Amino acid sequence: MMDYKLGTGEFEDWIVSETAFSTDYLGKCEAILSLGNGYMGMRSATEEPYIKEQRNLFVNGTFNKAHPNEVTELPNLADVTRIDIRVDGERFSLEFGETANYVRQLNLKTAELSRSFDWTSPKGKKLRFHFKRFVSLANLHLMATKMQVESLTHPVDFSFDSGINAQMNNSGAQHFLEGERRVFDKQLIQLVQTTNESNVDVVINTTHNVKVNGEETMAAPDMDMARRKVWLSYAFTLQPNDRLEVEKVTTVHTSRDLNALEAEYDLQQLRESSLGDLKLHALQGYDSLFQTHKQTWQQNVWDVYKLEIDSDNAFDQLGLRFALYHLTLMTPAHDARMGIGAKGLSGEGYKGHSFWDTEVFILPFFIYSNPAVAKSLLTYRYLGLAGARAKAIENGYSGAMYPWEMAWPTDGEVTPKWGDIDIVTGEQSRIWSGAIEQHISADIAFAIYQYNEVTNDQEFLDQYGYEMVFDTAKFWASRLEWNEEKGRYEIINVIGPDEYKEHVNNNAFTNYMAYFNLKLAIRYYDRLAEENPELLEKLAAPLELAAAYPDWQEKADRLFLPEPRAADRVIPQDDTYLQLEEIDLTKYKNQEKVRTIYRDYNSEQINSFQVTKQADGLILLYLLEQTFLHDDPRISKDVKSASFHYYEPKTLHDSSLSLVTHTILASDIGEYDLAYSLFQKSIEIDLGPAMDTSDEGIHAASIGGLWKAAVFGFAGVRLIDGRLRIDPKLPKTWRSMKFTIQWQGSPVSISITPTLLAIKMEDGEAMVFETNNVVHECTGYTEIPIA
Amino acid sequence: MMDYKLGTGEFEDWIVSETAFSTDYLGKCEAILSLGNGYMGMRSATEEPYIKEQRNLFVNGTFNKAHPNEVTELPNLADVTRIDIRVDGERFSLEFGETANYVRQLNLKTAELSRSFDWTSPKGKKLRFHFKRFVSLANLHLMATKMQVESLTHPVDFSFDSGINAQMNNSGAQHFLEGERRVFDKQLIQLVQTTNESNVDVVINTTHNVKVNGEETMAAPDMDMARRKVWLSYAFTLQPNDRLEVEKVTTVHTSRDLNALEAEYDLQQLRESSLGDLKLHALQGYDSLFQTHKQTWQQNVWDVYKLEIDSDNAFDQLGLRFALYHLTLMTPAHDARMGIGAKGLSGEGYKGHSFWDTEVFILPFFIYSNPAVAKSLLTYRYLGLAGARAKAIENGYSGAMYPWEMAWPTDGEVTPKWGDIDIVTGEQSRIWSGAIEQHISADIAFAIYQYNEVTNDQEFLDQYGYEMVFDTAKFWASRLEWNEEKGRYEIINVIGPDEYKEHVNNNAFTNYMAYFNLKLAIRYYDRLAEENPELLEKLAAPLELAAAYPDWQEKADRLFLPEPRAADRVIPQDDTYLQLEEIDLTKYKNQEKVRTIYRDYNSEQINSFQVTKQADGLILLYLLEQTFLHDDPRISKDVKSASFHYYEPKTLHDSSLSLVTHTILASDIGEYDLAYSLFQKSIEIDLGPAMDTSDEGIHAASIGGLWKAAVFGFAGVRLIDGRLRIDPKLPKTWRSMKFTIQWQGSPVSISITPTLLAIKMEDGEAMVFETNNVVHECTGYTEIPIA
Repeated sequence: MMDYKLGTGEFEDWIVSETAFSTDYLGKCEAILSLGNGYMGMRSATEEPYIKEQRNLFVNGTFNKAHPNEVTELPNLADVTRIDIRVDGERFSLEFGETANYVRQLNLKTAELSRSFDWTSPKGKKLRFHFKRFVSLANLHLMATKMQVESLTHPVDFSFDSGINAQMNNSGAQHFLEGERRVFDKQLIQLVQTTNESNVDVVINTTHNVKVNGEETMAAPDMDMARRKVWLSYAFTLQPNDRLEVEKVTTVHTSRDLNALEAEYDLQQLRESSLGDLKLHALQGYDSLFQTHKQTWQQNVWDVYKLEIDSDNAFDQLGLRFALYHLTLMTPAHDARMGIGAKGLSGEGYKGHSFWDTEVFILPFFIYSNPAVAKSLLTYRYLGLAGARAKAIENGYSGAMYPWEMAWPTDGEVTPKWGDIDIVTGEQSRIWSGAIEQHISADIAFAIYQYNEVTNDQEFLDQYGYEMVFDTAKFWASRLEWNEEKGRYEIINVIGPDEYKEHVNNNAFTNYMAYFNLKLAIRYYDRLAEENPELLEKLAAPLELAAAYPDWQEKADRLFLPEPRAADRVIPQDDTYLQLEEIDLTKYKNQEKVRTIYRDYNSEQINSFQVTKQADGLILLYLLEQTFLHDDPRISKDVKSASFHYYEPKTLHDSSLSLVTHTILASDIGEYDLAYSLFQKSIEIDLGPAMDTSDEGIHAASIGGLWKAAVFGFAGVRLIDGRLRIDPKLPKTWRSMKFTIQWQGSPVSISITPTLLAIKMEDGEAMVFETNNVVHECTGYTEIPIA
Repeated sequence: MMDYKLGTGEFEDWIVSETAFSTDYLGKCEAILSLGNGYMGMRSATEEPYIKEQRNLFVNGTFNKAHPNEVTELPNLADVTRIDIRVDGERFSLEFGETANYVRQLNLKTAELSRSFDWTSPKGKKLRFHFKRFVSLANLHLMATKMQVESLTHPVDFSFDSGINAQMNNSGAQHFLEGERRVFDKQLIQLVQTTNESNVDVVINTTHNVKVNGEETMAAPDMDMARRKVWLSYAFTLQPNDRLEVEKVTTVHTSRDLNALEAEYDLQQLRESSLGDLKLHALQGYDSLFQTHKQTWQQNVWDVYKLEIDSDNAFDQLGLRFALYHLTLMTPAHDARMGIGAKGLSGEGYKGHSFWDTEVFILPFFIYSNPAVAKSLLTYRYLGLAGARAKAIENGYSGAMYPWEMAWPTDGEVTPKWGDIDIVTGEQSRIWSGAIEQHISADIAFAIYQYNEVTNDQEFLDQYGYEMVFDTAKFWASRLEWNEEKGRYEIINVIGPDEYKEHVNNNAFTNYMAYFNLKLAIRYYDRLAEENPELLEKLAAPLELAAAYPDWQEKADRLFLPEPRAADRVIPQDDTYLQLEEIDLTKYKNQEKVRTIYRDYNSEQINSFQVTKQADGLILLYLLEQTFLHDDPRISKDVKSASFHYYEPKTLHDSSLSLVTHTILASDIGEYDLAYSLFQKSIEIDLGPAMDTSDEGIHAASIGGLWKAAVFGFAGVRLIDGRLRIDPKLPKTWRSMKFTIQWQGSPVSISITPTLLAIKMEDGEAMVFETNNVVHECTGYTEIPIA
């Protein structure tokens, strides 16, 4: 059972709880209750093991290729969470005996996981357990666990093994050499391992502080080693009401840490200094370490974003806090060499790779709420130019062709070639997106535009942004194909956002976004020529802009942009979609798991039906509206409405990216109840009752999209050709909504009720914005009644 | 609970049973009930998974180095044994619900594992399960499983997933590239993988035949793939008394198979032909395949060795059958490029490497019982000459210095450098045996001598044996160090069989065995000079025998051979042992697990006490007696007796090699009751009640030693300077003992009662033997009363 509002007082609406233990929910809870800090992420597996568990600890950026024929991925580090507990010599597990008063909860506010229950062993002895755990936001290398056990009724022999287990792997793929294990002073355990291809050193230290009734135990534990494992064994006889307390403090460092770049990196020195740090942390103890961690969450997260919803349905508030929580966990705010994985750091799914999910679904939150982090994420793409240029050359193009999946910036394209089973041939299916899902390059250009418009960060444009936009435009110019017969440029053989359609021609989303990218390059070139000819000159030679600029102009003007169908104003997803066979999709629209259509058809067959995986044309209408192309008649509101009603019934939402876009679009076209219901379904992608949906990790884009749905959808915030538009459409159940955004360097507090929009410029700067078709300028505090 | 005599009628004393399920015995049962055929070995993990399970499937000779800094080992292949069963949607496990009439048993005679029980689900539904499984001895590439399930009381939703899981690894080390997975005809599953360093291809095919009430099901199963996994999902509603029957037939082939050498190896062809084979096997069905397998066991094993004990204690008979069973499983009789691992093919322990265990503990059984296999095992060592010569050169010696641990013949030394934790420093302990446990070279020379004396196989000597003996003698000659002060050659800085003594000088076992090796080389040289000068000439140049021969003579004569201590006739284990501190060993002599002394002391400390891991001087006395040195006064019977009584109390039997040697020695010195009790303890190393002792695999040397203890100990068979001596000393509880040996090409049936020794020459050839100091010649049938 998941339960979402168990907190009281300070923590009301902050708690995600599991109130009955079930192994069916292991994967889901491990992912959605996971802990992390952007540097590392850890699934919340229980201390005691279960068959279906998936223990994962990832450190961002430590990519490695386990074998030459596999793609690079985030390796699963050694585990420190498992504790093998024996009660009277029998393995402790909640699958045995009787469990009462069970609750496992993640407190989003303090980012602490706790679990408590009374357990009666099969032999009838009653014990009370309490576990707590956090991964520190104050010190990115630190995590700590506390286990408290009380014998309630009988004397009980209680023993446990705890240490470091480096037998972990990624579904069978092993990324680490065996490494070195060592125990110092019969207490401090150190594991040093190196990845087998990328040569990243990882140093993990852990230590235990064990007390019975508040007294430190004197007896030394047994020490053991097995292959890739080292652990200590403790054993006690607990008398009734004896209370055992175990604190386990752990540090994780790698040679990919930013500070390993700064100084002369030396493994031996890292081993020593990290061990020294561990000793200090252990002396401080769990409670004190936790206080610092909790304060950091308050200061760095909650006091910055100030997102508050007063809704009849507390789930809305919790869902958005859940989003902010995971956005903090998944994002490597500390290091611009790293991106956001499609599952954050909460599971093996998608191997830690970054997709367009970042730019289109997650980045908007950071652009508006924490621009420094947004800049870091875009810098990651700048560092990826080398890989993007290499990919362009490999494919016979110019400029920067961004990888569909990106890992370490210089890795280039890392999309795997083979996927799930093809039910017709019995072979693995070919994954084509690495080769032909190309809109990512334009998505990145869009993100730069949006970042710059919202933040006014000219320095970013000068240093990184212009170069990226020019080079992606050069890619598109080289990518277009001239159709002599029709006298136009086309884009042949791509995959659009709807990945159920492979090898299509003139995917509307791709063509329009390429057009935007070309137009943006022209616009930036013109701006530079006028405002900063010196920089333009500097960029012109290496990027060959003299030849590129007229090429962009010629090609943008003659690029085929599919027109809405005259009869019904539906924008055709690609050249053939609207002519394909329509099939009865009821079975799949009502599916409990995603991708059930693959149980009946293979890719080739699905390619031939009017069935869509996720928002494709629809997301185009939403994205382009936020640019200087917002008044193009081909993306006008009636096209939005017609296309929504045409495509939504044909869309299986088989990607978690789909629902949030539909939420915003539904709101835009005035389908408010539908919008709210889609919003709730979006929250349920991770927080809903379906058991296996998050097993491979949380849905990072969907989580970023929750913020978008609330702020762009319900608060109606939109960037229209560089100006903020705020047209709130709060769901009926919402009494108020408050949040803070950063507009061109100024914090802006926005407060919305069904009848009032209030804007407060926290630093007294002026902001021009539009609401209900009226332009306002706010310097201090402005209230505007809502019609 | 283990139980050892559950069979009736035909199978009395053939059955090893587990009569109550306990996860504490998972490891033990997986190993001792394991299945195999010398080509492959499979641990008998249950179909349904448990936390502490260890699923292993090894194919002999497929050695691979997972990472450059690890040693080569037998990789754990993909698993086909696990079946994930759900009853009414809940995971089936014997840890839940109620289990009645449980029995799991290995029938040694038919080499079939079976398991049956009635199980009541937590929801109160009763089902009857019956599982059977074998790994074919008739077709080395084949295994099959049968699962029968009956719903006894209610309609029940029964579903299961079954396929191939290649996420398996060796305690975290992954040997295989990801490979290819495929399903043909929605039914035939094929996995193709290659090891990452040795480039061995492995092709595994599996298929299911599913019937309900005898009717094949028509519904196609769901097919799924995950990383390194492919499986089918079947689901049924079973009405009361409905009977589900699932047969799963599997084939395993590799590019290291002998026939891959013969023809032009082609992976694609192997894929196709193995799949074709699988289809034929599946058509034949479990029962028919099993009949052929069972007949092969009868013909190739039981009808050949004919070992029968009539004892008051049926455990004796069962223990010896258990030995013959596992000797068949562990031995690659099909391929001379492969040796016997210290755990056979029943666990990851010792990585599939061959030690002196083969020559001294296992080979005697084959020399006397199945000389063709003995020849194959010695040929493996011949193929290892390249590695042995390389090791000699690396260490600055001449000739052949055999690796302490050997894997693929040309690999040379493969002993790992680091082992368990040092409890004082907290570091991993350095393993020295690869560098300085050197007696293995002489042990191999001894094995050649013994093989040749028993079989009279001159061709082996001519082709392989002479060269090995000459080259090991050359090693020793180069290895000896001249002690100028004492005017003698010594062997400094070695480890003897007692590995608790590292870096000792003049280990008696090593010195005497080196002496034997030199003397054997001289003897063989002399024999060749007389009988086959042509071959001698051929060998002389490459082996530089002209220089070697006088060197052997000079060094053998001046090699220091430690004298028994004058006062008590105890042979000193090495230069310092008898002067070391004596400590109270009571705690460790009474230990339940081995190596508990390492909980209190580290290697350095143990090195300084009079404590012995396993028979050292004692095994010397037993081995040398079987050579032309049998009448050397330094190894006389009084030395045997004095040394036994001195060393046994100081010996912790912390190696499974120890007890069987002590059994033989106790018998030799007339301590018959002690001998019998040591024999029973030897059986209990694997078949006893201790739960974890076999977790890493069965004890191959101990199992070989059981046969030695019975035949060399109780039947008193011994080779004395080329002649057979038979001096039976049956335990009091034994009414008779029968067995067949092969003496110089002739099968000899030996029957012993407390009062009579009967010898029958099955082919009518003559055999000269000695009993009770009288020499007899037997041609047909001879009976000799026993005093």
